[in-house]
Amino acid sequence: MKSELQDMSPEEFRQYGHQLIDWVAEFFSHIDDIPVLPEVAPGGIRRQLPEAPPGRGEPMDAILRDIDRVLMPGMTHWNHPKFYAYFSITGSLPGILGELLAAAFNVNGMLWKTCPSATELEQVVLDWLRQMLGLPETFWGIVYDTASVSSMHAIAAAREQLRDLQFREKGMAGRGEVPRLRMYASDQAHSSIDKAAIALGIGIEGIRKIPSDDQFRMIPDALAEAIAEDRAADWLPFCVVATVGTTSTTSIDPVPAIADICEREKLWLHVDAAYGGSAAVVPEMRHVLDGCDRADSIVVNPHKWLFVPIDFSAFYTRKPDVLRQAFSLVPEYLRTSEDSEVENFMDYGIQLGRRFRALKMWFVLRYFGQEGIAARIRKHIQLAQALARRIDEHPDFERMAPVPFSTVCFRAHPSGMKDDELNALNERLLEAINADREIFLSHTKLRDRFVLRFAIGNIRTEAYHIDRAWGIIQKKLKESGL
Amino acid sequence: MKSELQDMSPEEFRQYGHQLIDWVAEFFSHIDDIPVLPEVAPGGIRRQLPEAPPGRGEPMDAILRDIDRVLMPGMTHWNHPKFYAYFSITGSLPGILGELLAAAFNVNGMLWKTCPSATELEQVVLDWLRQMLGLPETFWGIVYDTASVSSMHAIAAAREQLRDLQFREKGMAGRGEVPRLRMYASDQAHSSIDKAAIALGIGIEGIRKIPSDDQFRMIPDALAEAIAEDRAADWLPFCVVATVGTTSTTSIDPVPAIADICEREKLWLHVDAAYGGSAAVVPEMRHVLDGCDRADSIVVNPHKWLFVPIDFSAFYTRKPDVLRQAFSLVPEYLRTSEDSEVENFMDYGIQLGRRFRALKMWFVLRYFGQEGIAARIRKHIQLAQALARRIDEHPDFERMAPVPFSTVCFRAHPSGMKDDELNALNERLLEAINADREIFLSHTKLRDRFVLRFAIGNIRTEAYHIDRAWGIIQKKLKESGL
Repeated sequence: MKSELQDMSPEEFRQYGHQLIDWVAEFFSHIDDIPVLPEVAPGGIRRQLPEAPPGRGEPMDAILRDIDRVLMPGMTHWNHPKFYAYFSITGSLPGILGELLAAAFNVNGMLWKTCPSATELEQVVLDWLRQMLGLPETFWGIVYDTASVSSMHAIAAAREQLRDLQFREKGMAGRGEVPRLRMYASDQAHSSIDKAAIALGIGIEGIRKIPSDDQFRMIPDALAEAIAEDRAADWLPFCVVATVGTTSTTSIDPVPAIADICEREKLWLHVDAAYGGSAAVVPEMRHVLDGCDRADSIVVNPHKWLFVPIDFSAFYTRKPDVLRQAFSLVPEYLRTSEDSEVENFMDYGIQLGRRFRALKMWFVLRYFGQEGIAARIRKHIQLAQALARRIDEHPDFERMAPVPFSTVCFRAHPSGMKDDELNALNERLLEAINADREIFLSHTKLRDRFVLRFAIGNIRTEAYHIDRAWGIIQKKLKESGL
Repeated sequence: MKSELQDMSPEEFRQYGHQLIDWVAEFFSHIDDIPVLPEVAPGGIRRQLPEAPPGRGEPMDAILRDIDRVLMPGMTHWNHPKFYAYFSITGSLPGILGELLAAAFNVNGMLWKTCPSATELEQVVLDWLRQMLGLPETFWGIVYDTASVSSMHAIAAAREQLRDLQFREKGMAGRGEVPRLRMYASDQAHSSIDKAAIALGIGIEGIRKIPSDDQFRMIPDALAEAIAEDRAADWLPFCVVATVGTTSTTSIDPVPAIADICEREKLWLHVDAAYGGSAAVVPEMRHVLDGCDRADSIVVNPHKWLFVPIDFSAFYTRKPDVLRQAFSLVPEYLRTSEDSEVENFMDYGIQLGRRFRALKMWFVLRYFGQEGIAARIRKHIQLAQALARRIDEHPDFERMAPVPFSTVCFRAHPSGMKDDELNALNERLLEAINADREIFLSHTKLRDRFVLRFAIGNIRTEAYHIDRAWGIIQKKLKESGL
């Protein structure tokens, strides 16, 4: 007999599940009219909520009511056609359904045995994606949560490849006989690379930033020189991180030339294509991954530009054995009789807990199909190029970087104004643009210049949204009195 | 005007969303009749799926049909009342709804500005949980994905606390002036602690395993001796990991005595209470966290035993400034005007991407209430104690460890049989029990003895399930011919 102490009943779940599905459908029906940015001061949401947890359970009605009452006033809507900040992303509706099912199953796919469907579906969708990106069959894949974690595993594998130094066994500190380690990335590389270096004990000095050219691409000659210089000074170079689609400008490092250097110098080449890699699904954009078949590892984030809800980071390496050597550690309670014939994904990373992330990717790839996904990414690139042309044609604006993908870097530059005034102007302009909460842009600095970033990547973003946004930007510049 | 290249329409989402909600409701309605383990050989699921991704999109009907056709035959059902392996967990129905909403919003809560509701709701639910666990107000909280990542951050903070050694800046390798680092954990500590040591460059030799007593608890005197010995041999002790609820037996390390040593020796004390910590929500079980108010950090996983869908790991520390010092690194493109007055959670960890995990926890805590959650955990403990008594009373079985929580370690031990025969017998017994796929148990080894683990933690598990399971276990032993 069932006790009183059960879960919500299936009937109640059905009722409130339908209600929540309807809420979500309604939300997306009129999302154009919802401000993308919230109007709330720090602490404003917290103050709406009790300081202590409820003693007794509350009715589901009350909880769902608070979505509108408490949460919505503090939402920055990432899943919104007018979100142009950072990288614009999409949790598509089929992907949301996949996430719902994953939560219902609630499996931990640490071992094959702990959910064969989770392990094998992960293998399948990663192989599908590999084919879509045009990567060779020699690339073995695994899903991590974020690009930060993917890149950290790449760098850890690069370190493990220095097998003679026995870092896994003996650690890194206090060993006078071991050289200092150096890795390389461009001055445009993502901050997650620095954080990985800190975590792994490489340290900030252990990562040397290679200058980029006038299009923000790593200069291969400068890389080669830096390596030579470091070797002469008794550093041990071990890893290079190239980026396909840097965060500030989406520039593409010259991977073929960098791969040449890495092969010659026997360094692990990791490619951070977290954002840009997805574009390779578009046949005429496949060139953005040129040379990446020669990388040791690469990360591409379907939760950035492949319409998969956050989190899903696809990591590929040609050397899974090295990754496994770094992280495999099987206590008795995790041994199974199938260990010798199956892939146990827990052997390839830090995290033992593994959500069933392949489900949402499977739903998305099947619902849209390879062509459907490519068409949507192509559209984003075309929208960005059209916006770039308008900026180029406008006398009071200037483009600040090439637009290889769907992100446009620009600034206001009324004639005769100097750089130091321009920074202040553009900072004010960004604030004015975001203040109305209708669109959301972010910024970066390029060679000390304050630059606005307009990132296109939400599946709902249409030409009319960009028209409207461009109108707002021009109007705000005018209102600033110039 | 909208182009053809849109998301699934809200109408279609409504239709298939309702269909999927109904599928999930139906699944849980007859879950008792679904085998907890699948009947599939390695590769069996993969073979059902096309080798190449679909070129064109497929109808949602076909995708949903494949849940039953392709996935179900390969599912190990973690969200099942008869799952007794590893740690039994629950993605409760209110939690599943919370996850659905989080996927729909699809925010990245890296900064306060990028979703004030996500940041502030995380602060609120973590403060609620802190109160429920009886931890002092001085504990500051953050949500990570897994206990593995939480513990890695704890050990990284411990390392950062050795500020004079400047590991963040200079790294660890090749510095002869720096001592070798040592951390301590019992021989029963979880493998994630070893993996963190590997990742952080501490190395396997940098983690010294302290022997445990006959109840599998760390021996404080042995810890003190090890530290003294290491100091004399020029190691630099910096961190101790104590466990509340070890993975093999759920033993509880004597935290108060360990805290004494850590205070005296000035070592960072991290408590891994990933499983056991949740029990402190039950008033009469609060003692399991005795001494943890003196820890520097502690991890408790609501996705283990607080009915929250995977992933949700709650990490608390009394020294968030040290964690921030280790990991804060703010590139220009992530600066916001609110930075000085708000909490930006990205400053406290490796991962930049942060899902809206607080939502599901909020739904669960409100729906069940503190008392409702405590009652369900209490029930699991009572069920485990009742099972332990039956094992104790049975002439052919013996209990292999105390049962402080809801996991029972035992083995078959027909009279007169020797230890080496017993291992083979129990290994065969476990295989026979799981072979019928009706219940799922796992194992461990304790002092070289093969031991069966019976973990209770799913919200649907009732006394009649345990009766049935105990019947199966006895029957399988009989059938083995003894």
